[in-house]
Amino acid sequence: MDKAHYSNIHLALVHFPVYNKTGEVVVSSVTTLDVHDISRVCRTYGVGAFYVVTPLKTQQELVERLVGHWLKGHGAEYNPTRKEALLKTRVIKSLEDAVADVTEQAGEKPCVVVTGAKQQPNSIGYENFREQLQKGGPVLLVFGTGWGLEKNLTRNADYVLEPIEGNSGFNHLPVRGAVAIILDRLLGRS
Amino acid sequence: MDKAHYSNIHLALVHFPVYNKTGEVVVSSVTTLDVHDISRVCRTYGVGAFYVVTPLKTQQELVERLVGHWLKGHGAEYNPTRKEALLKTRVIKSLEDAVADVTEQAGEKPCVVVTGAKQQPNSIGYENFREQLQKGGPVLLVFGTGWGLEKNLTRNADYVLEPIEGNSGFNHLPVRGAVAIILDRLLGRS
Repeated sequence: MDKAHYSNIHLALVHFPVYNKTGEVVVSSVTTLDVHDISRVCRTYGVGAFYVVTPLKTQQELVERLVGHWLKGHGAEYNPTRKEALLKTRVIKSLEDAVADVTEQAGEKPCVVVTGAKQQPNSIGYENFREQLQKGGPVLLVFGTGWGLEKNLTRNADYVLEPIEGNSGFNHLPVRGAVAIILDRLLGRS
Repeated sequence: MDKAHYSNIHLALVHFPVYNKTGEVVVSSVTTLDVHDISRVCRTYGVGAFYVVTPLKTQQELVERLVGHWLKGHGAEYNPTRKEALLKTRVIKSLEDAVADVTEQAGEKPCVVVTGAKQQPNSIGYENFREQLQKGGPVLLVFGTGWGLEKNLTRNADYVLEPIEGNSGFNHLPVRGAVAIILDRLLGRS
């Protein structure tokens, strides 16, 4: 596979710290289907690394076992496109570690851009952010699970992407769908 | 909920006739997560009806039980946004029946537009199709599961939407992701 397919845009799916239904800060469970779906979408749009972020050892092992099965196990032969999709998927214990990993790979600190369903004071639109991307430099796009990213994560980000507005006022997209839409808006028709 | 949120664009997720991995025509299994994800995305973009198409009685019952749980069961209270997302989701035994249902609701036959991962002779681009949508009139957007829609379905459609090209040559998106991207391209920024 050609390394040139991959861009300097990376993605993190965060399972801690996120909110639960009642507003408490929790560790959410990894959904294996998120790992597959988001890996495929990342591969389609040539995203660099896809980090599955969880501090729980057992959950880290689950993701490693899943990825290992499709990269090296029986799955690699059974479904090669699934293998290809998972080549850049890795599990990591914190968002800080994901930032450090990108920094090490890219040679400079990434611009950290968080996403979410609510408008924020430091929100940036898609048109503006596409222009920002033209400048190059590493970017880490951050998605939350559960009921969304803990507020300090959002406050400390370099940018917050505008929420996806459909046309109905209903904004409860699954994270898998939000990733697909956002990568298409940012990278799909350049 | 305001009825005006809904457009004259409807969506069908087809489980028969579709191909399996080896190119045989089969009935694929309903994935409950498809029903939830696609219902949410449809609701976000104000899609009219979302038809889950399967000829299998047991699978129809599965979808009806799922929808019933969230509309009328304990789920309606536990998660009202899930309820709202599923209000326009229904199961139906064939694509012909879905076309007939839209025809009855809308008073005219819908324009049937199929999607898929391969370029076709009668493919239409997103820009052109958005213009087509401006004219009004009912539209039924058709998505396949498994390894894609049986070829006669594609041949007999009024239009075939261009496949989603990311920027990497890899085109193995999950159907949940394809629905999200296509609805956003067609309805997201008008």
